[in-house]
Amino acid sequence: MKRIAIVGFGTAGLRAALSAKSQDSSASVTVVSEEPYLTYSRCGLPFVIGGQIESFEKLIVTSRNMLLRLGVELMLGFRAVDAIGDTLYVEKIDGGESKQIKFDSLIVATGSRAYLPPIRNLNINNVFTLRGIDDGIKIVNALEKVRNFVVVGAGAIGLECAEAFLRRGIKVHVVELTPKVLPSILDDDMASILHENIVKHNVTLKLSGRVSEVLGSNTVEGVVVDDEVIDCDAVLISTGVKANVDFAKKIGLEIGSYAIKTNEFQETSKAGVYSAGDCAETKHLITLKPFAPYLGTVAYRQGNVAGANAAGGSMRFNGALGSMVLKIFDYEVGATGLNVEQAEREGMKVIVGKAKWYTKAEYYPSHGDLTVKVVFDANNGRLIGGQIIGVSDVAQRINLLSALISMGATVDNIVNLDTCYSPPVADVIEPVVRASEIALKKFRR
Amino acid sequence: MKRIAIVGFGTAGLRAALSAKSQDSSASVTVVSEEPYLTYSRCGLPFVIGGQIESFEKLIVTSRNMLLRLGVELMLGFRAVDAIGDTLYVEKIDGGESKQIKFDSLIVATGSRAYLPPIRNLNINNVFTLRGIDDGIKIVNALEKVRNFVVVGAGAIGLECAEAFLRRGIKVHVVELTPKVLPSILDDDMASILHENIVKHNVTLKLSGRVSEVLGSNTVEGVVVDDEVIDCDAVLISTGVKANVDFAKKIGLEIGSYAIKTNEFQETSKAGVYSAGDCAETKHLITLKPFAPYLGTVAYRQGNVAGANAAGGSMRFNGALGSMVLKIFDYEVGATGLNVEQAEREGMKVIVGKAKWYTKAEYYPSHGDLTVKVVFDANNGRLIGGQIIGVSDVAQRINLLSALISMGATVDNIVNLDTCYSPPVADVIEPVVRASEIALKKFRR
Repeated sequence: MKRIAIVGFGTAGLRAALSAKSQDSSASVTVVSEEPYLTYSRCGLPFVIGGQIESFEKLIVTSRNMLLRLGVELMLGFRAVDAIGDTLYVEKIDGGESKQIKFDSLIVATGSRAYLPPIRNLNINNVFTLRGIDDGIKIVNALEKVRNFVVVGAGAIGLECAEAFLRRGIKVHVVELTPKVLPSILDDDMASILHENIVKHNVTLKLSGRVSEVLGSNTVEGVVVDDEVIDCDAVLISTGVKANVDFAKKIGLEIGSYAIKTNEFQETSKAGVYSAGDCAETKHLITLKPFAPYLGTVAYRQGNVAGANAAGGSMRFNGALGSMVLKIFDYEVGATGLNVEQAEREGMKVIVGKAKWYTKAEYYPSHGDLTVKVVFDANNGRLIGGQIIGVSDVAQRINLLSALISMGATVDNIVNLDTCYSPPVADVIEPVVRASEIALKKFRR
Repeated sequence: MKRIAIVGFGTAGLRAALSAKSQDSSASVTVVSEEPYLTYSRCGLPFVIGGQIESFEKLIVTSRNMLLRLGVELMLGFRAVDAIGDTLYVEKIDGGESKQIKFDSLIVATGSRAYLPPIRNLNINNVFTLRGIDDGIKIVNALEKVRNFVVVGAGAIGLECAEAFLRRGIKVHVVELTPKVLPSILDDDMASILHENIVKHNVTLKLSGRVSEVLGSNTVEGVVVDDEVIDCDAVLISTGVKANVDFAKKIGLEIGSYAIKTNEFQETSKAGVYSAGDCAETKHLITLKPFAPYLGTVAYRQGNVAGANAAGGSMRFNGALGSMVLKIFDYEVGATGLNVEQAEREGMKVIVGKAKWYTKAEYYPSHGDLTVKVVFDANNGRLIGGQIIGVSDVAQRINLLSALISMGATVDNIVNLDTCYSPPVADVIEPVVRASEIALKKFRR
């Protein structure tokens, strides 16, 4: 009987447990997690804060009964402290109790945590980060007394939370270090479309702004941004995440540029030890370089692979494109592959097509706008990335672009796609095709 | 200076005119059309009847000024009667005036008309078909006095009109000859999902029912369905379309199984004569057989190709997959490629995956159901078709499946797709991937 120990019970840990049991139902599977909660959707946290989802409990995506029935053993509230030979050493979070777990395969799925930039005075009340349910509860409890929230960082979580706070009737300032919103995702031109919409909703956006200090002795009274003070009574630090690799380092796993090094079988540098989720690096399918996208979809798939292989299987995870989507105010925003900035940083020569079009037939009353930007490798015509911003129907177009990239599609393939159309749901001209037609003309020049 | 004459001013005729001018702006382009209207969207007609679109004028997709500016000459209200040598003979619809148009290239874009099945007594008042604005106007004018509408044929137009009539407060019976709704599009299992929803909206659906006669002397009083009489005061015959090939026959073009034979350049059997739109056959990209999908998207693309080539270009239209989508009551329904029934009729052995899933994260309040069925060639694992029915987000998934088919994707490619996710817009598990995973298990058995 194979013994599998899993450290971490986020999306990757849960999927690893289920996948291991599916590969070998006789395997013994033990999951250790610091949090007291069953696996929940971290991506759903801002929507509980915003009130669209009624409670944090709704975010829990598994059930104790189902796990019991499968024979997955849970040790919640335990921290993994070391692994030597075939023994995992854990101890209770609230002190005292130590335990040992024997394993044949170990899966490290320790996830990521909020990155804290060098800002002075972050340890007072009402300075928040948002990674888990406990963070969410703290924020919700504070909201009633908050009038002005400063969000530091205009990435995905920062913008989702900015909208959530606004929905709760709070004034919101967003301060971003770089000159644009969603800086790691969008090119400038696409970011500016979103920017305009955010400002329209009365969020104050300060770009190219560096927060140096939080003001206040017991609780937040303001933040210092460059030479200016913004008065506020709460601050969210949403300046990205970093992989949790302390445990991995302790047990001697090789760490790459971003996170734990893994191969396509999700094996780490140590025999019998696998890793999956935000703590694990993968390969970017275009640059072929190490890559840590910190996405739930990737954690899900890596978890499946790590679990199956830990139980004797031989699944592969070939890499990722960073395909992502968000809903921010009136727009859905998505991206996959490389944007122009990223491609040029890789030394690639690109040809771009961009089209502003409609989500359905122009004469159908509820149509809205949708802008597609597609990026091609100028040398071989292959699609290498895309960004879309529109009032709806963005996610599935990102999946289309992602599929086209992974199938090696060229601009010629895309302009010949056999798309579907009906006035209430899609126009006769597909914006992805239209944008590619514009790129094709540049290829022919 | 190249002289181009175009017969027909639907989507294909308009696109041909614009594409010819874009290929060679010095070309003289003359368009002859029987209808008095500028090009309009036929697909939008049911939504004017239903009231979602406020008037038939809204469906017009071009402007006289734009065409004037481009130098496209319009002859509306004229019928093409013959073409001999380099001369097209036309005459005014309302009698009298004949004209001759000299051409170097001729484009036949005569479209299609409603197919009328052998039902007795179709020539009385309140028996309708719906192909053009004039048909739509007649129907709208009659609606006020109609209490019971019988729709003959549960295809796309029949069902869209059934919903439109219901929106106008009219009781609706739909009678379909075959045992399912959307018979030329969906397999039985998928059709039954739509069927249930239609019935839920209080449309009476009679399947496997043959209408033999319309009752009434001056105006409709009922229809005879098998041995039963359904009382009604209006009938819509929506039993499919057939290509308008009378003019093509007259001028000696070769006609295939469904419509005018064309090659990938949209050339007909006669040098210098092109055809595009519903009157022209194309090739099915999977069966490689002649195919007439009667879709606006195909007309659009064929028109572009015919126009460019008539003006000296060399564009290709490689064929189609019949990708389509509809909105019927609570569901969007779409399909591409072959369904199981069609594939088996072609002698193919198939493996199917089907998944009922959600349009967004299950814990996000406004999620709805979505069922994906994917059909693979059992011999090589390639995707050959898909059908989707869901409350939203169907069209772009059909485009995804269509793209995957045309790129030659296998089930392995699809289960490894890098999809995107965010609770308000898409689940971490993509239903297209989930359905393919189910198929993959069958491949491995």
